[in-house]
Amino acid sequence: MDWNATRPGEVEGGAPDRADAALTFIGRIRTPFRDRADCPHRGAADGPLCRIEVDEPWRPALHGIEPGMRLEVLYWMHLARRDLLVQAPKGRPAPLGTFALRSPNRPNPIASSEVDVAGVEAGAVLVRGLDCVDGTPLVDLKPARR
Amino acid sequence: MDWNATRPGEVEGGAPDRADAALTFIGRIRTPFRDRADCPHRGAADGPLCRIEVDEPWRPALHGIEPGMRLEVLYWMHLARRDLLVQAPKGRPAPLGTFALRSPNRPNPIASSEVDVAGVEAGAVLVRGLDCVDGTPLVDLKPARR
Repeated sequence: MDWNATRPGEVEGGAPDRADAALTFIGRIRTPFRDRADCPHRGAADGPLCRIEVDEPWRPALHGIEPGMRLEVLYWMHLARRDLLVQAPKGRPAPLGTFALRSPNRPNPIASSEVDVAGVEAGAVLVRGLDCVDGTPLVDLKPARR
Repeated sequence: MDWNATRPGEVEGGAPDRADAALTFIGRIRTPFRDRADCPHRGAADGPLCRIEVDEPWRPALHGIEPGMRLEVLYWMHLARRDLLVQAPKGRPAPLGTFALRSPNRPNPIASSEVDVAGVEAGAVLVRGLDCVDGTPLVDLKPARR
């Protein structure tokens, strides 16, 4: 399957050509999903255990994260396209604008997921409920909105 | 007030010095909040009307956004510090790690808020529930998780 093929009804354009701000990846996410074909369509609270690894410089910032907390995780969908304005996902009756979809393909491919903390280790947080490929770059962690 | 002062109990470090990925700002957010002192601590569903302006190249990606939808908005907190690992916000009994807080100060200062769509115009979405300074750069829009 060609994940990067443009489908009928899809519109390309708006591809970013400016670096307005720089992200620093602060770690990576270990999941059992080896490639995109393995990934669930969306995460589930009873999904497999995933390990959010935080690189050494940022580990002190984990202080206060405890099992049972609900976390919001931002991550960089490094395999996504950034040039799709209108998309035609399978199972949708008509194409929709990228901003009306949660597709990984978007101008700034940042995903946000909410997960339950199952455990905390030195430099890592164990969670359930993620949907991304093993090795996905980590952008941010914060408590979920109440 | 010096918004950038480091308070007792806070820990600096981990400041990003790599550009692992580039963001392109796709628009900006117009709010009645002229500076940080004006901003509410958090957005409210009955807050003032704010206008999310999308730049021309990305406007086709708004197709399908309708009044009444709940949107997730990602934006870049351009006034924030990126070098705080442990923070001592007012009203908290003890310092906490940055990843256990929703403070704007974080290694990658991306905020996520959920808002109700009050109206849609050509190239803009009107919403309530944002908390950011007028002119804040827009990173992404997507339907809120159900």
